[in-house]
Amino acid sequence: MADYNAPVKDMKLALNHIARLTELSSMPVFEDASDDMVSAILDEAARVARDVVGPTNWEGDQTGLKLDESGVVCPECFHDAYSQYAEGGWGSLQFDPEFGGQGMPYLLSVSVMEMWQSANMAWGLCPLLSQGAVECLSINASDELKGIYLPKLISGEWAGTMNLTEGGAGSDLSQVRCKAEQDGDHYRITGEKIFITWGDHSLTENIVHLVLARLPDAPPGVRGISLFLVPKYLVNADGSLGEYNNTKPLSIEHKLGIHASPTCVMGFENSVGYLVGELNRGLACMFTMMNNARLGVGLQGVAISERAYQQALNFANERIQSPAVGHKEPGPIMRHGDVRRMLLTMKALTEAGRALTYDACGSIDFSHHAEDPERREKEKARAALLTPVVKGWCTEFAQEVTSLGVQIHGGMGYVEETGAAQHFRDARILPIYEARMVFKPWI
Amino acid sequence: MADYNAPVKDMKLALNHIARLTELSSMPVFEDASDDMVSAILDEAARVARDVVGPTNWEGDQTGLKLDESGVVCPECFHDAYSQYAEGGWGSLQFDPEFGGQGMPYLLSVSVMEMWQSANMAWGLCPLLSQGAVECLSINASDELKGIYLPKLISGEWAGTMNLTEGGAGSDLSQVRCKAEQDGDHYRITGEKIFITWGDHSLTENIVHLVLARLPDAPPGVRGISLFLVPKYLVNADGSLGEYNNTKPLSIEHKLGIHASPTCVMGFENSVGYLVGELNRGLACMFTMMNNARLGVGLQGVAISERAYQQALNFANERIQSPAVGHKEPGPIMRHGDVRRMLLTMKALTEAGRALTYDACGSIDFSHHAEDPERREKEKARAALLTPVVKGWCTEFAQEVTSLGVQIHGGMGYVEETGAAQHFRDARILPIYEARMVFKPWI
Repeated sequence: MADYNAPVKDMKLALNHIARLTELSSMPVFEDASDDMVSAILDEAARVARDVVGPTNWEGDQTGLKLDESGVVCPECFHDAYSQYAEGGWGSLQFDPEFGGQGMPYLLSVSVMEMWQSANMAWGLCPLLSQGAVECLSINASDELKGIYLPKLISGEWAGTMNLTEGGAGSDLSQVRCKAEQDGDHYRITGEKIFITWGDHSLTENIVHLVLARLPDAPPGVRGISLFLVPKYLVNADGSLGEYNNTKPLSIEHKLGIHASPTCVMGFENSVGYLVGELNRGLACMFTMMNNARLGVGLQGVAISERAYQQALNFANERIQSPAVGHKEPGPIMRHGDVRRMLLTMKALTEAGRALTYDACGSIDFSHHAEDPERREKEKARAALLTPVVKGWCTEFAQEVTSLGVQIHGGMGYVEETGAAQHFRDARILPIYEARMVFKPWI
Repeated sequence: MADYNAPVKDMKLALNHIARLTELSSMPVFEDASDDMVSAILDEAARVARDVVGPTNWEGDQTGLKLDESGVVCPECFHDAYSQYAEGGWGSLQFDPEFGGQGMPYLLSVSVMEMWQSANMAWGLCPLLSQGAVECLSINASDELKGIYLPKLISGEWAGTMNLTEGGAGSDLSQVRCKAEQDGDHYRITGEKIFITWGDHSLTENIVHLVLARLPDAPPGVRGISLFLVPKYLVNADGSLGEYNNTKPLSIEHKLGIHASPTCVMGFENSVGYLVGELNRGLACMFTMMNNARLGVGLQGVAISERAYQQALNFANERIQSPAVGHKEPGPIMRHGDVRRMLLTMKALTEAGRALTYDACGSIDFSHHAEDPERREKEKARAALLTPVVKGWCTEFAQEVTSLGVQIHGGMGYVEETGAAQHFRDARILPIYEARMVFKPWI
């Protein structure tokens, strides 16, 4: 099985020559993002992705998950990988220095995030979801909630989740039945959520659930949904962890892929929840999280394609077979025109997808930090236009690329030990995530 | 999970109005294949596929296989399904009455074979391979071998396999190293083969391995390969089973799909083998088997697509979700235009693939039985032209159709218990089987 080596050169090409990182770096707000600093960050992230996270991918897939009295039990190797990720400050690159972030361009963090997703997509969902929670709270939460939760989420000490879907309702959020009742300055949340990615685990000491629920007197449909922050453990005034807050993983799904990413049915029972944003405006708050989550899913399409490509390239160079045209002796299958065609298709789609994704993410940075308000608006509209394209296209071509990865391996590709099949299975979730194109093609 | 109901009406449309079954039935050789008889056969096969074989599909996938001292252990439910298949005479439809066959058109047997492949593709590979062995022996074996082996293979009491590939050689048969040494009127076979589908099992009391091997003084490359019949148990003069013939499953592969189809590494050690066809002409003999095997693989593409379609159709009618355009209340997702688009794409590809496959198979019947020798030649050429198209296209669209089947289920499609993911995993073997298009696009 091939190691994952982050394509730092390709990434820099997309960052600097397509997504305008050099222009971002020239802004005062990003003065720390010098070319040298960017190189140092990418090189070090590449090392961690190759040596620490990458090797957990296959083991995680084969070990899978267990649910016992203590909650979800992850593959042992995930703990060390996560600790090194958190201790390296990898989750804080793009966030506000006020809460412990490093104030780097979001765009740069996207390159680094691509590496985690290539290295281990199942594991990488935990950081990805946590970053989504940070974005959502940064925009919508009260200063008090921000002060308590953001530093821990940004440092990676705690993880975040998004709890939208309920049984029988799928993508239709108007059907949310999860109940919220006021109880002094907070709320009590009771109900069940399904398909909750990384809904429970012990990689972090606390988990911050963002939960859509409905007050008893709320209007019907999506206009009656509010967003609540529901921690796994309550937080004491001194910041230490308090009581368990009844956020229980009731079961985990048995899935086609991302076997090591716990997809939980979560039960909340009288759990303390704190309102995020305004009452009955929960969907709008959640969407601030989902926008970047959708870019993240597109990025996963690029990432898993890159990993599948590296695996197939390695195999094509090592596997000796029938003499190719113009050769008398058997040689590497790389010599066959059709193998090269498949590899180049994989490479071309992956690089194009990376360029598109980074470019959209660059626009998000400009939409926040460009000096000219008109330009900020323009970049915001551009990001909004590109987001569904990134999500739709990169998740679609990831199906083709990972399938070609299997095909290049021939019969060996169908054997799980080779590793190509895992990428193919893992990738299949991507066009399903974050609301299917079917019902909501516009998001 | 939806039951499998054979689309008998669609099958008859393709049989009669595209593949010319009515013309075949009007020939004296097929006088028994009356319209009533065809209907009776299809209806009864549909019942067995629905009630007996179909229900084993999911259980087989989840139970998988074990290899112990006794050999490969199949899911328990496979035994009863196979017994009913054999006792019903389902393996004998198209074969020569001289050896116990029913003398029906090959084309009709293809419809019935489609049902087994839809009902359980992993299980269905056992009958499919056995029929390939019958075809190969019918054309190439001596009368003595035919007399001993064909009746038992045709009745389904014994099963057949094809042993081509060796470790490190993949599709490159010129590299065959398996050794054959003359020993009186037979040969002794020693060597290892990989990727041997249904290489061992106890569904039948004997297994007839067709093995490519090389005599010590044979010319190098493909011109030095001979074909041998190597039974699991030797056959006594009275037809009873004799000694174990050292045909040992050394390991089984851990695969992406068709979990219940044992893919074996087979070891032969001084095993008695009987020459099939002429010395050093083994590849040509094997190709008589591979031609129909490739049509069979294309047929599997049609079959798994049909199964995935039925599963998705059932889900789309039962699953209630967001109100569709023109509706105020939530209703079945079938109401959504894009769900209908996906279902119709699945259906259209499946029906077109069935028409093409049946049509090619009809030409094979005409190539054998048409009165006019010129027409026989023409139909033979037509079948030869269509065979790689059937194999290539039907296995490719099966990827799209089974993937759409997952997509229609949304998140539920990624959960194994729904069943859509199994079809997607199972289908992925099809473009790999029977020599990759990469190296041998012409076959």
